[in-house]
Amino acid sequence: MSKNYTVADYLLDRLAQIGIRHFFGVPGDYNLQFLDHVIDHPQIAWVGCANELNAAYAADGYARCKPAAALLTTFGVGELSAINGIAGSYAEYLPVIHVVGTPALRAQRAGDLLHHSLGDGDFGHFSRMAKEVTVAQTSLTASNAEAEIDRLLTTALFERRPVYLLLPSDVAEAPLSSRPAPLMLRQPNLSDASLQAFIAAAREKLQAAQRVSLLADFLAERFGAETVLEQWMNEVNIPHSTLLLGKSVLDETHACFTGTYAGAASDPQVKQLIEGADVVINVGVRFTDTITAGFSHHLPSEKCIDIQPFEARVGQQVFSQIPMRDAVKALHQLTLSLARQWQLPAIKRPLLPDPSGSGLDQHAFWQQMQHFLQPGDILIADQGTSCFGAASLNLPRGCRFIVQSLWGSIGFTLPAAFGVQTAEPDRRVLLLIGDGAAQLTIQELGSMLRDGQKPVVFLINNNGYTVERAIHGPEQRYNDIAEWNWTLLPQALGHNVKCLHVGEPEQLRQALGEVHGSEQLMFIEVMLPKMDIPELLDTISRAIQSRNAAA
Amino acid sequence: MSKNYTVADYLLDRLAQIGIRHFFGVPGDYNLQFLDHVIDHPQIAWVGCANELNAAYAADGYARCKPAAALLTTFGVGELSAINGIAGSYAEYLPVIHVVGTPALRAQRAGDLLHHSLGDGDFGHFSRMAKEVTVAQTSLTASNAEAEIDRLLTTALFERRPVYLLLPSDVAEAPLSSRPAPLMLRQPNLSDASLQAFIAAAREKLQAAQRVSLLADFLAERFGAETVLEQWMNEVNIPHSTLLLGKSVLDETHACFTGTYAGAASDPQVKQLIEGADVVINVGVRFTDTITAGFSHHLPSEKCIDIQPFEARVGQQVFSQIPMRDAVKALHQLTLSLARQWQLPAIKRPLLPDPSGSGLDQHAFWQQMQHFLQPGDILIADQGTSCFGAASLNLPRGCRFIVQSLWGSIGFTLPAAFGVQTAEPDRRVLLLIGDGAAQLTIQELGSMLRDGQKPVVFLINNNGYTVERAIHGPEQRYNDIAEWNWTLLPQALGHNVKCLHVGEPEQLRQALGEVHGSEQLMFIEVMLPKMDIPELLDTISRAIQSRNAAA
Repeated sequence: MSKNYTVADYLLDRLAQIGIRHFFGVPGDYNLQFLDHVIDHPQIAWVGCANELNAAYAADGYARCKPAAALLTTFGVGELSAINGIAGSYAEYLPVIHVVGTPALRAQRAGDLLHHSLGDGDFGHFSRMAKEVTVAQTSLTASNAEAEIDRLLTTALFERRPVYLLLPSDVAEAPLSSRPAPLMLRQPNLSDASLQAFIAAAREKLQAAQRVSLLADFLAERFGAETVLEQWMNEVNIPHSTLLLGKSVLDETHACFTGTYAGAASDPQVKQLIEGADVVINVGVRFTDTITAGFSHHLPSEKCIDIQPFEARVGQQVFSQIPMRDAVKALHQLTLSLARQWQLPAIKRPLLPDPSGSGLDQHAFWQQMQHFLQPGDILIADQGTSCFGAASLNLPRGCRFIVQSLWGSIGFTLPAAFGVQTAEPDRRVLLLIGDGAAQLTIQELGSMLRDGQKPVVFLINNNGYTVERAIHGPEQRYNDIAEWNWTLLPQALGHNVKCLHVGEPEQLRQALGEVHGSEQLMFIEVMLPKMDIPELLDTISRAIQSRNAAA
Repeated sequence: MSKNYTVADYLLDRLAQIGIRHFFGVPGDYNLQFLDHVIDHPQIAWVGCANELNAAYAADGYARCKPAAALLTTFGVGELSAINGIAGSYAEYLPVIHVVGTPALRAQRAGDLLHHSLGDGDFGHFSRMAKEVTVAQTSLTASNAEAEIDRLLTTALFERRPVYLLLPSDVAEAPLSSRPAPLMLRQPNLSDASLQAFIAAAREKLQAAQRVSLLADFLAERFGAETVLEQWMNEVNIPHSTLLLGKSVLDETHACFTGTYAGAASDPQVKQLIEGADVVINVGVRFTDTITAGFSHHLPSEKCIDIQPFEARVGQQVFSQIPMRDAVKALHQLTLSLARQWQLPAIKRPLLPDPSGSGLDQHAFWQQMQHFLQPGDILIADQGTSCFGAASLNLPRGCRFIVQSLWGSIGFTLPAAFGVQTAEPDRRVLLLIGDGAAQLTIQELGSMLRDGQKPVVFLINNNGYTVERAIHGPEQRYNDIAEWNWTLLPQALGHNVKCLHVGEPEQLRQALGEVHGSEQLMFIEVMLPKMDIPELLDTISRAIQSRNAAA
């Protein structure tokens, strides 16, 4: 028992116990007391961001690489600026621990007219808002702190989603009598009866099949099924694919990996290999509009086995209380023998399309990127031409692909790349972002430079919001943006950065050559034609346009 | 009756009728249908912003100059990014009409797994959040559109606060049979009996007084009482003052204007002139923490007459149904004769403190700013050393001062200045913002340059969050920020801009000289010492620090 041990210290020790080593955020006068403890903590480093939305995005990126992430904002102004980022973490299952420094409890109870409040004495507005985009919320006091902190952290880890902790400035400093014992993590329930029934139903379905395929998506990564999935795919030959949101969940160098599946927008062979099977096994898949080109997937549930985080389905039958990993392991064992009777069609990975001319266009760019990629790279592609073009890349082994296809907040990836590089200082991070998207969140480039990070930033300059042009209004003024001098910008935001402007294939080749062994952050402005739209984006955007139109 | 007249057109015509000429926002695929109509509208111009928070701030700034402002975002990602700005408009009484483009109604009803949703089929999350920070909300359909648009716009204008309209992409295009008739605005109720009772009570209080003073604050401006207030002050000699949030509501060149009142942090003479009176008349005042130096105002309600937007008080007595302007006019008439018996103390405006040495410090800076100010300028000062330093300026006639003291979101003023300059293209706009604050929202400088705006931007570089240093942790690393090369930055964000870096009083003098007649946006980086803190901020921050501390 330490005399000066406080609620702030307990929270930080717990965060360290669950594997958090960095705290992202922006200081504000209601969180400065807590921040003193962050600075003093031996295991956790403070990572100041330029604004709160960027800090939330950075935390989200960090949570994609670590068990969880921590975000600190101040009451009202700070937390609301961050809330779009938190909502994205909620939609895409990232455990971000959002700590909000608030006015002291006595001031809240008195209903004082404080700055950062709405001036009506009601201090509950923002926590009611947070309730919509977090899985647990609490307002800490000296007496509830230990139990509530533990409840929120275990909930965030169990559900893989953000939680919201209000930490009044006086409570942060309140003394506690004990340091934390090891945290008991919550484990998902496994019903053995349910598992046996699932296996029986799956056996029946798979026994009758001649062709079987498998689709994996992002939830397989979020709920820790990647390793068991890989073991399965290594021992049993099943043609398999991912959707865009889950790209890199499966090893793309595997002989049975078919390429990225995207409903009707898939390469015809990929579509045939997946949809043409008698039984399709889905692991951690959510069929959302963009990644299925407007729900154009033809996968009737009768022929699917669907594995979700805590339950599994065979056709319409639901088997509850089966954690994803257990379902995957069970199917692995089950298919070891069954697979012998299945047909294995020939699988030839789709090739990237050839450049249409001698200039630098989307095709030429992605072909060079394909050769540039190295095993272990982390590729982060913004929602737009970047991610839809990158969808066709064949990822080297151990390469990680990060995209935000469901929430789809443009500009997300730049601060997310900052968070990812903070979590993974020794891996090469490649950021692909359009000029329109980069304008939303550009200031975090300054934080990368401040911290000496050396990602490679590809600024795809296609003169405005090309992803919106693809959907609607290709020549409308609202899809134009302010013209920036991109190659001046990085030097304005810091030091130790090299900027290159490439408009021809040969220039791009030279620029990529310079990246190897560079000891600087490389910022490469890639000029691409305004209306040059990757095929996948073209198909998807036509689907979206027709769904948005009047009936 | 036009064949192609749509819900989108009706909304735009209504916005034009209430005096809106610009629509701020960011395109997104759910609002592109509506945006086509914005572009085509003869009276309303589209003003694209770099991101949604900045767009909300710009709209807020615009609403400080025009009857209202309009903001367009897309569903989920866009609206949540903007919500901190909307909350600020709510707290500080600015009517911002927030239009959110949403997925088509049939997709919402089907609960589709759409991008920009949380993926749970519930499309109500974000409108429930908006309910906390707007005074009216609606989801438009073809059949409710006319009534609901009218209800929301009249509510926003009546309550001077933001409203929230969900506009599904298909509804925007739905045909309407009629163009709008003139909009009937809602008028506040006036109870003649209540007014007479108020006058009687006020007479009794004022008759007994020997010294009377008056305080005005921001709500006097928001509820249109500036003109009647000025007429009153011109005809009746009462020592008067504003709080910081309402600075410029009263003509500061008036002989009876005492200077800015800030509770215990006031200049001693100002404090004595206001608090020393027997009766203090408050017009549109909210005593919030920062502008009263932590509620250090000594103004017991028994000696106050308090005029609020829709009611008035004399001591503890409340008189409802009296619009602010009527109460002001009544007191004007009442005091014409009564004032003859009151003592009028000598009023000498506090002088700005002299510079402490020969270097450029806060004192030297504000003294030069004082001489630089011209009648009609609009001065926008960010929450930080900028606004607390600017509090001591004596504003020339017709000069407008804009600050966000209650909500206090740092970085607000840069995009707000963009909105203000859009609303007031012919007035000189001066922006004062610190380096820490400017990093939050810097990209909107690009929009200013794109639109050829020529405000004068004073970037107060004091090496981090000095306002936070004043409150807590002066030497803590969390109050440092990334080091930017400020004078490179504006050229990176556009053209027709001149950057100057000033570190000495003489350099500042030369820079200010260059502003006159300049046909470029001037960006002046002013180097000030890191721990040089304006007196007012010092007093206020000590009050905040003690209120945040553990009991």
